[in-house]
Amino acid sequence: MGKVYIVGAGPGDPGLITVKGLRILRKADAVLYDRLIAKRILKYAKNAKELVYVGKHVGEFEKQSEINRLLIELAKKYEVVVRLKNGDPILFGRSGEEMEALREAGIEYEVVPGVTSALAAPAYAGIPVTHRDYSSSVAIVTGRRKGGAFKSIGNVVKNVDTTVILMGISSVREIVEDLISSSVDPDTPVAVIENATLPNQRVVVSRVGSLAEDVRRHDVRPPAVIVIGKVTYLYEKLKWFKG
Amino acid sequence: MGKVYIVGAGPGDPGLITVKGLRILRKADAVLYDRLIAKRILKYAKNAKELVYVGKHVGEFEKQSEINRLLIELAKKYEVVVRLKNGDPILFGRSGEEMEALREAGIEYEVVPGVTSALAAPAYAGIPVTHRDYSSSVAIVTGRRKGGAFKSIGNVVKNVDTTVILMGISSVREIVEDLISSSVDPDTPVAVIENATLPNQRVVVSRVGSLAEDVRRHDVRPPAVIVIGKVTYLYEKLKWFKG
Repeated sequence: MGKVYIVGAGPGDPGLITVKGLRILRKADAVLYDRLIAKRILKYAKNAKELVYVGKHVGEFEKQSEINRLLIELAKKYEVVVRLKNGDPILFGRSGEEMEALREAGIEYEVVPGVTSALAAPAYAGIPVTHRDYSSSVAIVTGRRKGGAFKSIGNVVKNVDTTVILMGISSVREIVEDLISSSVDPDTPVAVIENATLPNQRVVVSRVGSLAEDVRRHDVRPPAVIVIGKVTYLYEKLKWFKG
Repeated sequence: MGKVYIVGAGPGDPGLITVKGLRILRKADAVLYDRLIAKRILKYAKNAKELVYVGKHVGEFEKQSEINRLLIELAKKYEVVVRLKNGDPILFGRSGEEMEALREAGIEYEVVPGVTSALAAPAYAGIPVTHRDYSSSVAIVTGRRKGGAFKSIGNVVKNVDTTVILMGISSVREIVEDLISSSVDPDTPVAVIENATLPNQRVVVSRVGSLAEDVRRHDVRPPAVIVIGKVTYLYEKLKWFKG
């Protein structure tokens, strides 16, 4: 019986995987990987007999139970199985469900944390998510609907200084409507970071009130990270990434 | 004129520094490092002519301006200067102030994100901070007072599913008083992770109402991460780290 390593691949820049993650990937017999995993990271798995892409429709329940089943099957066949995820595995990565399935099947596992795009995207845009003068709290939420329903994030935004929204581009209209109807100030500054940490990274600055329009006008596409709060003012002053 | 790399060293386990951070550390001419940076990580800076410890009283304003001054001085002297921080540099690391000082001095800089203990501590305790059934939002706050004043986190806890408190052990009484007076349910489950990701990691499970008492009774010491919310129930079921 093998062991499953649930590994965070980091936010995109292949240099942002951890040393431990890389070491495990190098000795992997099988790798199950998500969408957006850099080819340069997958290349490290040079001993892998199986590289399984499981990135399509990952939000769907059936797909998740299929991934759980595959993980168990591969762990019975190989010694080192890597479940490779974008960013950090315990933040919107559904690792909890995979750990539960593995525990129930009596298979050993280990979690290898990764750099989350929720922090790397603002970092590469020169935006510190906390700052002595502007922010002492950060929230990280997802813009993805759960079972068709969109969960309000207005109260989150109103009660922390900085909010980071992952996977929010495709539902940006609903997000803005929700924020406005929750009485979030439409003048609150926003930065949208597209393809964060990659050579084609692009930053669009906006306001809550005009965010949906700006995303449309600049044709921002996933993957993109939305950062809301005063710290985003620092982008113009502190940006450093040249791609 | 040299360049300053503001690098996250990760949460403690030396394997959790990034490949990019390690590569830069290896060619560093000078390193300014904080308290709690693992000796095994500092050893990578084998070419450094200067290793400067700046970890004491890092919360004080005078100390921060002294660090800013030192960074500028070293960047004028060396080609590669590393500012090595625990966890991720843009999360409670005061990197914003350092970037501002460097920009004003006309010195080039780059931020190398790191794995934050806010995510690695729960990961090593088997606690996914988000979970399809229990949590779709996470907040990260600090328990550290600013200028003597403690900022309320009750409203944060009430408006997200999972709250992670960094540097909260020394002010745990004030935190609990604040949560209770903000009408947070005293039965809300809590996990405290001491020395997260290190061989001596220890997890104490508690409730908001008895947290201060449990921290005292188990003699929990910094560094420790406090996680509040239903996901902490998963610790008993999903814990995996053996140290």
